[in-house]
Amino acid sequence: MQFSLTKSIEILERTPETLRHLLDNISEDWTFANEGEQTWSAYDVIGHLIHGDKTDWLTRAELILSDKVDKKFIPFDRFAQFENNKGKSLTQLLNEFNEIRIANIENLRKLSISASDLNKTGIHPKFGQVTLSQLLSTWVVHDLDHISQISRVMARQYKNEVGPWIEYLKILNQ
Amino acid sequence: MQFSLTKSIEILERTPETLRHLLDNISEDWTFANEGEQTWSAYDVIGHLIHGDKTDWLTRAELILSDKVDKKFIPFDRFAQFENNKGKSLTQLLNEFNEIRIANIENLRKLSISASDLNKTGIHPKFGQVTLSQLLSTWVVHDLDHISQISRVMARQYKNEVGPWIEYLKILNQ
Repeated sequence: MQFSLTKSIEILERTPETLRHLLDNISEDWTFANEGEQTWSAYDVIGHLIHGDKTDWLTRAELILSDKVDKKFIPFDRFAQFENNKGKSLTQLLNEFNEIRIANIENLRKLSISASDLNKTGIHPKFGQVTLSQLLSTWVVHDLDHISQISRVMARQYKNEVGPWIEYLKILNQ
Repeated sequence: MQFSLTKSIEILERTPETLRHLLDNISEDWTFANEGEQTWSAYDVIGHLIHGDKTDWLTRAELILSDKVDKKFIPFDRFAQFENNKGKSLTQLLNEFNEIRIANIENLRKLSISASDLNKTGIHPKFGQVTLSQLLSTWVVHDLDHISQISRVMARQYKNEVGPWIEYLKILNQ
């Protein structure tokens, strides 16, 4: 499948409501549990998604399309959510993610990205030159990666409860 | 986390709407694509979830709790969906899954499962004796496994589009 802005937005605009349906108002045993030291809970992942939408994806797209000479991306802080979200409930975070994502998609549409814009580039702190279509594809895959991760983290909480079925459940053996 | 019927139902009752939000009305490039020969698309997985709810999970729970002497489970057909769903749209399948799941949860609640019921057993075709709580835990993990799988199958459609970011996207490297 080749990159398509329309098809990318189909995924990006659904992620917040998908995660709300999966997570809102369920027990904290599911949403605050992680996979062990240095791993993230569903709550942590939602914070990470918010931080990405606030500081990273659209900001980088706008930089690529701007007239600025310096197209170096600001490195993304993968741990900002731990400081930012102190005291916030999961419901608050799910609402916050929904709001910022709606605004970002509106702004993404306003950029009126053309086929030739997709080949414009910015400078990633590690990878060097990357194109706008690679950035936007990664935004989509990043959403899906974290939906998958959240499902896995939740599933693992029952790892000791499934008995011999563990053999059939790929998610518990990753 | 120990098995809890209430916390299990929290997940089971959310799966159909979570999947509807993720999948309904998006391009078939996302929902009918698989990961290569002998693998499943999102569409195939929804059919598999329906077949499980129609023939497997609750049926096995009812057998465990029944007075029948023979507690052998009927083997589950992992490929029934390919025949069952010919000509149906994804929206039809998502509706069908939602309806059967709602009915199953209602019937699960009607079983009034007690703490001691959870240790009652049935005979799995491969594993032999398994308990009701293992069966119900597996139902929950099976839902989450397939949410994770669907996200992965969709993400993979952009595998060639993300450029160097592939290194950071675990879901593309599984």
